[in-house]
Amino acid sequence: MTPVSLAEAQRAAARIMARCDRLATISETPDALTRVYLSPEHLQANKLVGEWMAAAGMRVWQDSVGNICGRYEGEQAGAPALLLGSHLDTVRNAGRYDGMLGVLTAIETVQALQRQNQRLPLAIEIVGFGDEEGTRFGITLLGSRGLTGSWPESWINHPDGNSITVAQAMADVGLDAQAIGLAAREVSDIAAYLELHIEQGPCLEQADLALGVVTAINGARRLNCRFVGEAGHAGTVPMAHRKDALAAAAEWMVFIEQAAPQHSPQLVATVGTLQCQPGAVNVIPGEVALSLDIRGPEDRALAELLSELLTQAEAIALRRGLSFSAEEYYRIPATRCDEKLQAVLVDAVTQVQGRSLSLPSGAGHDAIAIAERWPVGMLFVRCDGGISHHPAEAVKTEDVAQAVRAWTKAVSDVAMLWPCAGGERVA
Amino acid sequence: MTPVSLAEAQRAAARIMARCDRLATISETPDALTRVYLSPEHLQANKLVGEWMAAAGMRVWQDSVGNICGRYEGEQAGAPALLLGSHLDTVRNAGRYDGMLGVLTAIETVQALQRQNQRLPLAIEIVGFGDEEGTRFGITLLGSRGLTGSWPESWINHPDGNSITVAQAMADVGLDAQAIGLAAREVSDIAAYLELHIEQGPCLEQADLALGVVTAINGARRLNCRFVGEAGHAGTVPMAHRKDALAAAAEWMVFIEQAAPQHSPQLVATVGTLQCQPGAVNVIPGEVALSLDIRGPEDRALAELLSELLTQAEAIALRRGLSFSAEEYYRIPATRCDEKLQAVLVDAVTQVQGRSLSLPSGAGHDAIAIAERWPVGMLFVRCDGGISHHPAEAVKTEDVAQAVRAWTKAVSDVAMLWPCAGGERVA
Repeated sequence: MTPVSLAEAQRAAARIMARCDRLATISETPDALTRVYLSPEHLQANKLVGEWMAAAGMRVWQDSVGNICGRYEGEQAGAPALLLGSHLDTVRNAGRYDGMLGVLTAIETVQALQRQNQRLPLAIEIVGFGDEEGTRFGITLLGSRGLTGSWPESWINHPDGNSITVAQAMADVGLDAQAIGLAAREVSDIAAYLELHIEQGPCLEQADLALGVVTAINGARRLNCRFVGEAGHAGTVPMAHRKDALAAAAEWMVFIEQAAPQHSPQLVATVGTLQCQPGAVNVIPGEVALSLDIRGPEDRALAELLSELLTQAEAIALRRGLSFSAEEYYRIPATRCDEKLQAVLVDAVTQVQGRSLSLPSGAGHDAIAIAERWPVGMLFVRCDGGISHHPAEAVKTEDVAQAVRAWTKAVSDVAMLWPCAGGERVA
Repeated sequence: MTPVSLAEAQRAAARIMARCDRLATISETPDALTRVYLSPEHLQANKLVGEWMAAAGMRVWQDSVGNICGRYEGEQAGAPALLLGSHLDTVRNAGRYDGMLGVLTAIETVQALQRQNQRLPLAIEIVGFGDEEGTRFGITLLGSRGLTGSWPESWINHPDGNSITVAQAMADVGLDAQAIGLAAREVSDIAAYLELHIEQGPCLEQADLALGVVTAINGARRLNCRFVGEAGHAGTVPMAHRKDALAAAAEWMVFIEQAAPQHSPQLVATVGTLQCQPGAVNVIPGEVALSLDIRGPEDRALAELLSELLTQAEAIALRRGLSFSAEEYYRIPATRCDEKLQAVLVDAVTQVQGRSLSLPSGAGHDAIAIAERWPVGMLFVRCDGGISHHPAEAVKTEDVAQAVRAWTKAVSDVAMLWPCAGGERVA
């Protein structure tokens, strides 16, 4: 297809920003954007986005788990599709770009194809997922896991905060929990998946770049940890005789902060909660409970870091005469982005902004679920201060214009060159 | 006086232990020892202790703030007194030796004089203070500050947890808040003050010694401190871009633990409480509030340590792009024990157990108040595991026997040799 001109991209970006504003008005609370799965606002947003898809020349349907879907046919009817998507649900008191920006930028890309009256070897499909955040039911990626057909059976009985189950909530909006399986797509239907999303972190801003290419969505481990020492009188027990659980935890936290970047600059480790017992100004802490959250784009590096951290905690406890324990309660493996899709995206970003930056995603995305079945690639757009999940979430219109140009080129390249599209193999 | 024989000391120690057990039955709760100022149990304990004092040949009275007092006259009627004392009140769910051991050992010392039918150049007075712990009213040393005449006017209107004021509580037990001043003693009435107390710390046990001599009662400072950084997503903000308030606090806590003993092995520093905000496993802590408690036997060393700690906290905050603040809300200066009294006690302890150990007191004692007017000296007795303020508080009978021997020698030496007693000056 003909590259999108700067002027066209700027007009598209202005439309995207206006549509983000328009979607932000569809909220269960007037002063704070909140739009959750299977709510009346969810269906309103689907309707509006479906109208925009239709205006771009797409055939539109809502699938059986409540995703809004559109298809722009390829050169040959029934061709495999390049799937573009992101989510339309939000956290509570959310920003207006997290998820929505990806869906609306995809629609502009199809709009450009329609304007040029062009068909590609692959069909282009767009999906606005109904649930990525898990705000309502506390379980996540319900939309994308509809497409992969990987809903656990137990999900339909999962309750929200008002004890309404997923099945009941589906019925309330005219969906049938017995038909969830119909949302699942054949592997051969879809060639690949591309998702555009705001970064939700500060790396692009720090690098002074509008766009970056995601290498992987970080895997994560979460643990509850505990040092047990001996409480004692803060005045009468000399420093050398103490078994201070907080002092031990402090030593470990300093180690954690230094060890993570020594393993790799892409690994992060966070102690986000800490409680000490008995917790009085004049009593030496006898027990400290603290959380550990570590994330990184490679499971092996993550496992090595965790092993080193736990070994060190044991050593600190042993040297001080304390005990240490840790229990892992959450683990999600890293999701690698497809190398070929990364190469296409890097090429497109480099053409648009002179150079590209490859970076892992610290947050989770629909691409995690989609990667169970299909190759995935992701493009990140800079957001102000890395702020997300907050009303202050913001992107610059000129960055969105850059994104439109890179995105349209990447989509076109993948659709032209993807092996199963009959074109030559992507390098 | 003739030294107390080992057999006599052992019999005295057995009586002291039995009397500690007897006093421990006088409690507002049957299963946990609690005896607070101006309670019915306080008066019961006074009555019993007064009977034991009288049996040792002392004239007995309860003073106007509720201390139980006894006097064993000197060689000449009206001679200045060597005052021996400690407290009869307890914390809630207390041990049975904290305070009481000092009063009961003093009574045995007078009993030995009576047995030998001996008078000394100084009279011997014993006081069982009615309040040292401050359990009931949250203000401390009410008994000893009766003797020094240093009750602030506001104290009589101070309420307990049931809104009963000190004045009302006094009236309830037949005392007159208008007569508090009558408890104050003339400076010339008292030559010196000696207090025997359990250590409430582990130093004697670690040194394998039953007895030690106190150099000073530690001064203390307490501060509320705060690091303010920036909360952020635990997955998306790289380690190098964080302003993690808990990581800063951890670095500071490691410094505190190392710096205190580097200044002096007698300084202690404790972070006993820590809260981090927002306090979620997947959020970088933006703010940490923590307490600092530092204590030491010399005010100047304490001030120097505190200054270094605060300078370091500022430096850590500055380097990390955070802010740090600290507010001191409690300060008590160190109380030096009199050098001459220390020398007498060291001599007595050395004679009894072969060597002495001089150590500061980490906890507060009645001697703090008495030192406002008179020279003070303190003898510490080993307690199991350094445990105090707990039902598990324990002392060994053989240690108490050692204490009786050393205490009796020291009391006799001071009474014979104290300058105002007309004897030669103590070296």
